[in-house]
Amino acid sequence: FSFGPPSSMSFERETRNQRKQASGVGAKINTLVNKATEPLHPNVEENRAQNVKHLSYAFSREKQHFNPSCCSLFQLLYEEWASYSVFYKYQPIGLVRKYFGEKIGLYFAWLGLYTQMLIPASLVGVIVFLYGCATVDNNIPSMEICHPRNNITMCPLCDRACNYWKLKEACGTARASHLFDNPATVFFSIFMALWAAMFMEHWKRRQMRLNYEWDLTGFEEEEVSALQLESCISLLFVCAWEPHITEKEKLTCRDRLPAYMTNIVMMLLMIGVTFAIVFGVILYRISITAALHMSNNPTTRSNVRLMVKTTAAIINLVVILILDEVYGAVARWLTVLEVPKTDKSFEERLIFKTFILKFVNAFTPIIYIAFFRGRLVGRPGSYLYVFESYRLEECAHGGCLMELCIQLSITMLGKQLIQNNLFEIGIPKLKKLIRYIKSKRRSFQEEEREKKLQRYETDHFLEPFAGLTPEYMEMIIQFGFVTLFVASFPLAPLFALLNNIIEIRLDAKKFVAELRRPVAARAKDIGIWYNLLRGVAKVAVIINAFVISFTSDFIPRLVYQYMYSPDGSMHGFVNHTMSYFNVSDFQDGKEPMDPQHLGYQVEMCRYKDYREPPWSNTPYVVSKEFWAVLAARLAFVIVFQNVVMLMSDIVDWLIPDIPKDISLQIHKEKILMVELFMKEEQGKMQFIDSMTPCHGKERNNHAPIARSRSIPHTHSHTHANNF
Amino acid sequence: FSFGPPSSMSFERETRNQRKQASGVGAKINTLVNKATEPLHPNVEENRAQNVKHLSYAFSREKQHFNPSCCSLFQLLYEEWASYSVFYKYQPIGLVRKYFGEKIGLYFAWLGLYTQMLIPASLVGVIVFLYGCATVDNNIPSMEICHPRNNITMCPLCDRACNYWKLKEACGTARASHLFDNPATVFFSIFMALWAAMFMEHWKRRQMRLNYEWDLTGFEEEEVSALQLESCISLLFVCAWEPHITEKEKLTCRDRLPAYMTNIVMMLLMIGVTFAIVFGVILYRISITAALHMSNNPTTRSNVRLMVKTTAAIINLVVILILDEVYGAVARWLTVLEVPKTDKSFEERLIFKTFILKFVNAFTPIIYIAFFRGRLVGRPGSYLYVFESYRLEECAHGGCLMELCIQLSITMLGKQLIQNNLFEIGIPKLKKLIRYIKSKRRSFQEEEREKKLQRYETDHFLEPFAGLTPEYMEMIIQFGFVTLFVASFPLAPLFALLNNIIEIRLDAKKFVAELRRPVAARAKDIGIWYNLLRGVAKVAVIINAFVISFTSDFIPRLVYQYMYSPDGSMHGFVNHTMSYFNVSDFQDGKEPMDPQHLGYQVEMCRYKDYREPPWSNTPYVVSKEFWAVLAARLAFVIVFQNVVMLMSDIVDWLIPDIPKDISLQIHKEKILMVELFMKEEQGKMQFIDSMTPCHGKERNNHAPIARSRSIPHTHSHTHANNF
Repeated sequence: FSFGPPSSMSFERETRNQRKQASGVGAKINTLVNKATEPLHPNVEENRAQNVKHLSYAFSREKQHFNPSCCSLFQLLYEEWASYSVFYKYQPIGLVRKYFGEKIGLYFAWLGLYTQMLIPASLVGVIVFLYGCATVDNNIPSMEICHPRNNITMCPLCDRACNYWKLKEACGTARASHLFDNPATVFFSIFMALWAAMFMEHWKRRQMRLNYEWDLTGFEEEEVSALQLESCISLLFVCAWEPHITEKEKLTCRDRLPAYMTNIVMMLLMIGVTFAIVFGVILYRISITAALHMSNNPTTRSNVRLMVKTTAAIINLVVILILDEVYGAVARWLTVLEVPKTDKSFEERLIFKTFILKFVNAFTPIIYIAFFRGRLVGRPGSYLYVFESYRLEECAHGGCLMELCIQLSITMLGKQLIQNNLFEIGIPKLKKLIRYIKSKRRSFQEEEREKKLQRYETDHFLEPFAGLTPEYMEMIIQFGFVTLFVASFPLAPLFALLNNIIEIRLDAKKFVAELRRPVAARAKDIGIWYNLLRGVAKVAVIINAFVISFTSDFIPRLVYQYMYSPDGSMHGFVNHTMSYFNVSDFQDGKEPMDPQHLGYQVEMCRYKDYREPPWSNTPYVVSKEFWAVLAARLAFVIVFQNVVMLMSDIVDWLIPDIPKDISLQIHKEKILMVELFMKEEQGKMQFIDSMTPCHGKERNNHAPIARSRSIPHTHSHTHANNF
Repeated sequence: FSFGPPSSMSFERETRNQRKQASGVGAKINTLVNKATEPLHPNVEENRAQNVKHLSYAFSREKQHFNPSCCSLFQLLYEEWASYSVFYKYQPIGLVRKYFGEKIGLYFAWLGLYTQMLIPASLVGVIVFLYGCATVDNNIPSMEICHPRNNITMCPLCDRACNYWKLKEACGTARASHLFDNPATVFFSIFMALWAAMFMEHWKRRQMRLNYEWDLTGFEEEEVSALQLESCISLLFVCAWEPHITEKEKLTCRDRLPAYMTNIVMMLLMIGVTFAIVFGVILYRISITAALHMSNNPTTRSNVRLMVKTTAAIINLVVILILDEVYGAVARWLTVLEVPKTDKSFEERLIFKTFILKFVNAFTPIIYIAFFRGRLVGRPGSYLYVFESYRLEECAHGGCLMELCIQLSITMLGKQLIQNNLFEIGIPKLKKLIRYIKSKRRSFQEEEREKKLQRYETDHFLEPFAGLTPEYMEMIIQFGFVTLFVASFPLAPLFALLNNIIEIRLDAKKFVAELRRPVAARAKDIGIWYNLLRGVAKVAVIINAFVISFTSDFIPRLVYQYMYSPDGSMHGFVNHTMSYFNVSDFQDGKEPMDPQHLGYQVEMCRYKDYREPPWSNTPYVVSKEFWAVLAARLAFVIVFQNVVMLMSDIVDWLIPDIPKDISLQIHKEKILMVELFMKEEQGKMQFIDSMTPCHGKERNNHAPIARSRSIPHTHSHTHANNF
C-alpha cells in the first residue's frame, strides 16, 4: 500500500511547478507574464512566500525516507549509477528522478528498458548468425560456386577494360553472403518487427508504472495547460481580456507563410544536398575504379576494389558526421524562423526536423546500396552509362547483400565509436586538458584564488546542460539501424546492446560529474520521441520486406525450388540464375582488350541476370523467369507487410497499456481518496453550517463542485486505441 | 461565454449517475452491491434523500432555458426530429440528449455526421459513374469488341455442352463493365480511403465538441471507474476488504479456459458454416447451369444465365438475412459463457463477436466473386473440375467486375430494404395489427378498462429498448459496403445516403413513439464502434487495392499501353489479352457437340488468358505477358496501399483532434474555475481559521489536496497519437 501522505505530495507538486516556471526555458516568457499580471495580482509575492515555507517542510520530510542530506544523494548516484562497475545492474531510476527530475529520469528509464529489450534481440540475432555460419558448408548454391570442377566462364563486368573471369573467384563472397542471406534471416526480421511492437507496449506499461510511482497520474493536463497557459497568457493574454489588441499582436497565416515556405524549401534543399553528396561518392568510386582498371600494373588492379570500397565508406562516414552537425544547426534556425507558439511546440518541431534530416543523412547511402545499386546495369555488351562515361556500379556475384552488410556495420560502428564515444568522452577530456595547460601558465596567485571559490562558482565552470534531444536522437538513429535493415545485418542488435551498456554509464557520468546540474522538469511521457519510434517501426516493416525480397536471393531460391528445380532441391540454382552471352555479339570497341586472359578462346560467357539466351527469337530480352521472380518478390512484400502489421496490431491489442496491479491500485486509492475527501468536506461544511446558519445556506450550492470534481483522475484507456 | 452555473451542472451529473446505477443493465449487480455495502454504509438512504431535493431544484432550473414542461420536450422532439418532413434539417441533438441521455444522443450525432459526410462521397461517386457513362462510347476496348467487323471466334466456355461463340456477343457486358472499370474508379477509391480518414477525424472533433457542450470533458474516468468500481465491488469486493475469500471467488484462467476454447471453436465453426453455405450456393449455380446447358431447348438455354444468377443472388441474400439472426443469438450465448468481469466488457465482447460473424456473413459471397471466381478455371480443352464433375465458374467476357457490381447492389439494397425497412417498419406494424385484431375480439369491458389505464401503464405495452447495438451494427455493415468495394461500385455512397436520410427519421420515430423510453445513460464516446470503424477503414485500403489491380482490367490496360502497344494507344488491347487455341488439340470427348454451330469449320479459337500460342515450343503454358501483368498488379497493390496509408496518416495528423475554439474555451474556463475555487476555498479556510485557531492548524495540511486536484481536467492530446 504505497500511498504517501497526500499533503506532502501535492505540496511537492506545487513547488516543483513553481520552480519550473521560475527558471529554465520559460523564464523569458515568465518575466513577461509577471510584468503583465502584476497590476492584476499585486499580492503574488505574499502567497509565494507562504508556499516556500511549506515546501521546505515537505521536502525535508520526504527526504528522511531516503537519505539525510543532499550531498549523500549525489554520492549515492555517483557510486551506484555513474560507474562502469555496476553495468550489469538495473539503474537506480528513483534516485535519478530525485536528483534530476522526472524528464531526465524518464530518459534513463527508457534507455534502460531499450537496452534490456536488446538482450533477447541480440541473443536471437547471434543465434541467426551462428545458424548461418553452421549451414554455410551445406549451402548448395555456394557449394556449387566453390566446387573445384566448376568451370563456368563469366562475362567481363565492364566494357574493354575488364576480362572474362571464372565463377570460382566469387566463392568467398558467396560463402560470406550466406551468413546474412539464409531462411533464418526472414524469421529474424519478422521477430524484430514484433520485438519493436513489444518494446513500444512495454514502454507504455513501464511509463504508466513510473507515472504511478512518481505520482504523475493526474499530471498531464497540468503540464499541457501550464505550457499552453503560458503561451495563452503571453500571446493571447490580450485576447482574453482585451480582444481589440489581439488582431494586431497575433501572427496571421499570411505572416507565417514565408517562414513555412522557407522551411519546406530548405528541408528539400538539405535532403537534395544529402542525395548529391551520396551521388558524388558513387561517382568518385566509379571513376577511381575505372581509372585504376585502365592501369596495366596487375598488383594495383587487384587492390583496386578493396581500396575504393574502404575510402568510399570512410568518405561516406565523414560526410555523415559533418552533415549531422550542419543539419542540427539548420533545423534550429528553421524552427526559430517558424516562431512556434509554445515552448513544447518549438521543441517538437525542432526534433521533427532534426530527425528527418539526420535520418535521411544516415540512411541514404544504405538505401542506395540495398535497392538501387546493381539494378540498372544493363548486360554485357550494352552496359548502361550515365553522363556518357560513368557506368552504374554492379554488386559482386553474391548479390548486394554483402556490400549492404559492410556499409551498415561501418556506418553503425563508426557513428557509435566516433560520434558517441570519441565526441562524448574525447572532447570533454580535451577541453579539460586545455584548461589544465592554461592553468599551468597562470600565475600562482590566480590558482590560489580559484581554490578559494565557492562550490557553486566552480560548478559554474562545468558545461551547461544542452537538453535531452541529442541523447534521444542518437538512440533513435540506433533504433533505426537495429530495426530497418535487420534482415541484412542480424548482428546489429548485439552491437547496439554493447554500445548501450557503455552509453548508459557514460551518460550517467556526464550528467553527474561533467554537466551543470540541469533544472528539474516534470514530464509524464517521452513526448514526440514515442511517435518517432512508432514511425521508425512502421517504416521498418516495409523496408525489411523489400530487403528480403529484392536485396537477398531468398525469393529466387524459393521460386527455383518450387517452379523450376527438377528434383525439388537447390542443385542447379546457380546455373539457372545466369544467362548466356555470345561473345560474337560484342559491338566494336566493347570486347575485352585481352580475350585470351583465361588461356583459351571464349565463345559463350555467362552473366547473372534473367535474360533470353542468344539462340532465342528475342535474344537478351528479359525472360519469363525474370517476370515470374519479380511477381514472387512483390507478392512476398505484400504478404510480409500485411502479416507483420496484423501481428503487431495483435501484440498491441493483447498487451494492456496499464499493468493490472497498477490499475487496481489506482482504483482502490481513488475510493479511499474520495471517502477521505468527502468526510473532510462534510466535516468542514457541518462546522460552517453550525457556526453561521445563514452563510451555510449559500455555501451549500457550491460545495458539490469540490465533491464531484476533486476526484483524482487517471487515464485508464484499457481498450486498444489503435484497432 | 457558455459556462453554466457550476452547481446545477454537477448536481445533474450526480443525479444522472444515480439514475443510471439504480436501473438498466447494471441493476442486478447493483442490488448485489447494495446488499453487500449496506452494513458498511448504514446511512446511505439519508444522504440520497438529501440529494434528491437538490436534484429537483437543479432540474427545474435547467429546463427553464429550454421549455417549461417535460411533455413539451416530447412534443418538440416529435415535431422537429421524428418526422420525414424535416429530413433536410440538422437533427436537434441537444433535445435528443435532453430526452434520451448522452449515449443515444451520441448515436444520433454520429449517424447525422455519417449521413452528412456521405453527401460529398455520393456526389463524387455519381460524378465518377457519369464519367463512366460519358466515356463509354470512346472506350477503345469495348468499341473493338462491339465493332461490326469484329470477327473473332471464341472457344467454348465449357467442355462438350458449350459451343464456339463470337466475341461480338460480349459487347453489352463490355460496355456495362466500363461504367465501373475506368481510371476514375482508381481516383475514387483513393478519395474514399481519404474520406474515411476524414470522417474519423471529423467524428473525433464533433465528439469533442459535444463533450464540451454536454459538460462531459471530465467524465471519462468516472464512467470507467463507475463501471470498473461496480465490478470491482461485486467481484473483487471481497479482495479489497477480505483478501482471504478472493482466492475462492475469483475465476482463474483455468476456470475460464473451457469458455475461451468454446468461443474460439464456435467462432471458427460459424465462419466455416458461412463458407460452406456460400460454397453450396456456388455448387447450386454450377449444377443448375450444367443441367440446363444439357437441355436442347434453345430458349431455355438463353434464359439460363439470367435465371441462375437471380435465384443464386436471392438465395444468398436470404441466407445472409437468416444467418444474421442466428449469429446474433450465438454471439450472445458465447459472451455469456465467457463471464466477462464488467458490463462494459460484456458489451464490447458481444459487439466484437457479432461484428466478426455478421461481417464474414455479409462479405464472403462478395469476396468470392471479387477474388476467386474465374481465377482457376484452366483453359479450353483442359478446364479444371472440382469433385470430378463440377467446373469452377467463369466470369463473363468483361471481367468479373460486372458480376461483383450486381452482387454488391443486390446485397446492399436487399439488406437495406428488407432488414432495415421491412423489419424495422413492417414488423412493428404487423405486431400492432395483430394487437388490434386481438382487441377487436375482446369484450367491450376489457377495452374500456384499458382506456382507464394510467399513462405509464399504456407505455409499458410498447416494445422494450433493446440497446443501440443493432443500430450501430447495421450502420457499420453499411460503412463496409461504402468503403470496402467502392472501387467496383461507386454508387454505394449514394444508396447509403438515401437509406440513411430515411433511417434517421425512422429511428427517431421508433425511439420517440414505438419503444419504451430508454433509461438515460451517459457516455463520452461511441466506444468500441470507433475502433471497428477504424478497422474497416484499414481493411478497405487493401481490399480496394486488390479490386483495382486484380478484379478490374485497369492494370492489364496500363501494361498494354506502356509495354506492348505499338502506338501508345489502346488499339489492339482486346486482341492482346486473348490467347490462341488450336481446335485439333481438343482431347476426345471435350470438343463441342455441334462444331458447325457458327456455320463454318473452326480451326483456331481464342480465349481470354495470357498463354503461349499453339505454335510455340511450350504451347498453352502461361506466357511472359502473364507474369509481367501479374508483377504490375502486385506492384500496384504495394504502391496503392502504402501511398493511401501514408495519406491517411497525414490527414490524421493535420486535423487536430480538438477544435481550436473548444480547446481555448476550456483553458479559459479552467483559469476562471481555479480562481473561483481558490477564492471560495480560501474564504472557507479563513472563516474556519478565524473561528477555531487550533482546528485550523490541522486543516492546513489537507486543504491543498482540494486546491491542486480539483481542477477540472480536459484531454488535450493535441499532438497526433499515431505517427
